[in-house]
Amino acid sequence: MKLDTIRLIINSSRKFMNIGARQKLWNLLKNFHPPDIAGLINHFTEREKIILLITLHENDNKKAAGLLSEMAAEDAAEIVQQIPIETATKIFHDLPSDDIAPILELVSEELKNSILHSLEKKPTEEVKELLEHEEETAGRIMSPNLYALNENTNVSDAITAMQLEGDVESAFYLYVVDDENRLKGVVSLRQVLFSKPNTPLKNIMTTDVINVQTDTDQEEVARIVADYNLVAIPVTDSQMKLVGVVTVDDIIDVIDQEATEDIYKMVSLDTSDRIQDSPFSSIKKRLPFLLLSLLTASVAPFVVNYFKGTIQEVVTLAVFMPLVAALGGIAGNQTVAIMVREIAVGQTEWISARKALFKEIVVGICNGIVIGLLLGLVSYVLTRNPYLGLVLGLAVITNLFIAALVGTLIPLFLKMVKLDPALGSVNLLTMFTDSLGLLTFLGLGTLFLKYLS
Amino acid sequence: MKLDTIRLIINSSRKFMNIGARQKLWNLLKNFHPPDIAGLINHFTEREKIILLITLHENDNKKAAGLLSEMAAEDAAEIVQQIPIETATKIFHDLPSDDIAPILELVSEELKNSILHSLEKKPTEEVKELLEHEEETAGRIMSPNLYALNENTNVSDAITAMQLEGDVESAFYLYVVDDENRLKGVVSLRQVLFSKPNTPLKNIMTTDVINVQTDTDQEEVARIVADYNLVAIPVTDSQMKLVGVVTVDDIIDVIDQEATEDIYKMVSLDTSDRIQDSPFSSIKKRLPFLLLSLLTASVAPFVVNYFKGTIQEVVTLAVFMPLVAALGGIAGNQTVAIMVREIAVGQTEWISARKALFKEIVVGICNGIVIGLLLGLVSYVLTRNPYLGLVLGLAVITNLFIAALVGTLIPLFLKMVKLDPALGSVNLLTMFTDSLGLLTFLGLGTLFLKYLS
Repeated sequence: MKLDTIRLIINSSRKFMNIGARQKLWNLLKNFHPPDIAGLINHFTEREKIILLITLHENDNKKAAGLLSEMAAEDAAEIVQQIPIETATKIFHDLPSDDIAPILELVSEELKNSILHSLEKKPTEEVKELLEHEEETAGRIMSPNLYALNENTNVSDAITAMQLEGDVESAFYLYVVDDENRLKGVVSLRQVLFSKPNTPLKNIMTTDVINVQTDTDQEEVARIVADYNLVAIPVTDSQMKLVGVVTVDDIIDVIDQEATEDIYKMVSLDTSDRIQDSPFSSIKKRLPFLLLSLLTASVAPFVVNYFKGTIQEVVTLAVFMPLVAALGGIAGNQTVAIMVREIAVGQTEWISARKALFKEIVVGICNGIVIGLLLGLVSYVLTRNPYLGLVLGLAVITNLFIAALVGTLIPLFLKMVKLDPALGSVNLLTMFTDSLGLLTFLGLGTLFLKYLS
Repeated sequence: MKLDTIRLIINSSRKFMNIGARQKLWNLLKNFHPPDIAGLINHFTEREKIILLITLHENDNKKAAGLLSEMAAEDAAEIVQQIPIETATKIFHDLPSDDIAPILELVSEELKNSILHSLEKKPTEEVKELLEHEEETAGRIMSPNLYALNENTNVSDAITAMQLEGDVESAFYLYVVDDENRLKGVVSLRQVLFSKPNTPLKNIMTTDVINVQTDTDQEEVARIVADYNLVAIPVTDSQMKLVGVVTVDDIIDVIDQEATEDIYKMVSLDTSDRIQDSPFSSIKKRLPFLLLSLLTASVAPFVVNYFKGTIQEVVTLAVFMPLVAALGGIAGNQTVAIMVREIAVGQTEWISARKALFKEIVVGICNGIVIGLLLGLVSYVLTRNPYLGLVLGLAVITNLFIAALVGTLIPLFLKMVKLDPALGSVNLLTMFTDSLGLLTFLGLGTLFLKYLS
């Protein structure tokens, strides 16, 4: 939407709310899809969000449910906490189970039980089952609604059965199971459309089905769906019994989320930190990381402190300290970013880790030589002291080597100890490039002290 | 795949290639899907990659085509350059046009023309048309193959028509057009399945179709598909004539690519830089950015140089310089990361930019006060000099304020001047936090000089 349109909708909505003109508000909003309304929702105050949700619910409950399912679970939970339980329950009736689960987890125990209790039997069971799976696994993000039929069903009965089932999320494939509900094959709706009515499904199904298990990590599910160009992937339990399906729209959310997590973890941010959060909530989330950073950033001062005598004699060394540190940090950040994305999107295992390390070190040293020579030359021209140029050049070459080494090893090490490869990698890197870079620089400065002063 | 399996496949393949046992190589590989083989391909040498592709082609041309379409376009182009043109052409016959276009763009003009010439008429036209659209637009990533039928066609004729058309990429929707080929509606295969044979499509179609135009930026296409949970989106020209479809598997590639670009641009990396590239290629790509970084990183030394006299008198100030700079950099990186992702995934416009700025500044100042107080206290305990603690604390508070201000404004400013909000943001940020942070710290040090020495 255009910026002007957004402003207009927000201002008009606000006006209608203030004068209590809910019918006018509905007339304004009814032409927009839930994702559009969800995109605007954060421009409204808490109170306005509530009025908006209730207005949608009163006129078209599906739109109210659509709005909740498009919002971040945290935001949705915050609103439903504040509307009457009966209204909330009615809205939840039109939400698919996989959208209900994450919201319910965030509301008060009382509201959760009340909603679970008043939902009809089947969805309640489904939501409860979803909540039993670990967070960030296939079991948690899957939808239990899917078309699954016995392998001996024929095409014509399959069509009737699907018609009776009504709307389900995985509306692109028909999964085929045996008498024990074990996944045997898959039939696309296209195949159903083009097959003779009396053909049994087992004759037209593809038996080579790609599937995941309930405990498969959601990131792995996303990779499989992306690599095989699927629009839905069936989820089985450990006995290969079909329990659900993950659709590609959920996969896109996972991929967005994981990409944001990569960036956030690199710079030591809590993955739930958002610009819309209150300042207080962000302060609480960032402070622990900053306190840890205070520790990692305190290593370099100890190094510099050791060389106080040298600096006292050649203050010019202090002048170039920020430059040596910054160049190491910048080059190291590049290596970290490449490694983190490579591990996230690709499958860099130890088999190619040595190659990556070797390559980055070659790049680091070569770039270090170019930048170091240039910097050494410039500083020689400016200060007329060839030894300062030498010390500076050598320090930069060494620090770019350190940056490459540490920048490659940190993500690989974090992965090896089963942590997220991005976790705080920029902070750790800065700790090494600052302290080791300054150690080299000031160490060389001490070595050449008599030529510098 | 397990690491052991990967090792085994690679080693066995290599052995078979060395002894020229292509049949054995095929027997080994035939059970794997193209994405699996694509995942391994970078473990092989150039020569081995060529043998592998030709072996696949000789036994199952579709697998060879599948492998090319799963590989990065650059990698695929490198291999096809080196195989006989006739072989390449045959493989291209089994590639969809939207996969051909990006590869052809990277090969020599001679090979490109030769392949275009020898492909049958229709795909050639399609590929040429795709190549006419701007890079990174819907027109470039769309597939021209789709099910499109006139609104007056009835369901039974539609099924026959789709059967005759054979396999197309957008096999989930049937698009409905008028006599001028203008997009009028969409019918899902489910609706076709459940409708009476003599119903005209216009009676069952959904008229509220979400579509994009050929020149829509691919990132915007991805956002629309993600927001509306689509599996395919039709592409029209400026007259609303239907010209293609973008499917969700291409969208996932776009989202992955854009996320990688966000991270890469933040740390000033060329977006095509990959760990598998040769060291020389990465050196060439990173050197220009490092040279620019040398400039941005050279601002801080000028600041420090101005305060040489102060440092000469109180060398302890030099000791704490890296700490003040690092804390500003870390806090600023957090703000930059949040803003970049927010602008990428959300729709932060100027309407909420002021809010974001205000919020980040509040967070920066509050966290600055906590960290500054703590650091001031610790340094007082260690050095017994209350003024050093005061200078250090105030400098940290100020630098976290600067980091918040600059970290919010850089991405917003880059966006305003129509550049990528992530572009070099970490370098720019470091330039400000290093120089302004040290200016504050050493400035305050000069102010309190007589109490410090």
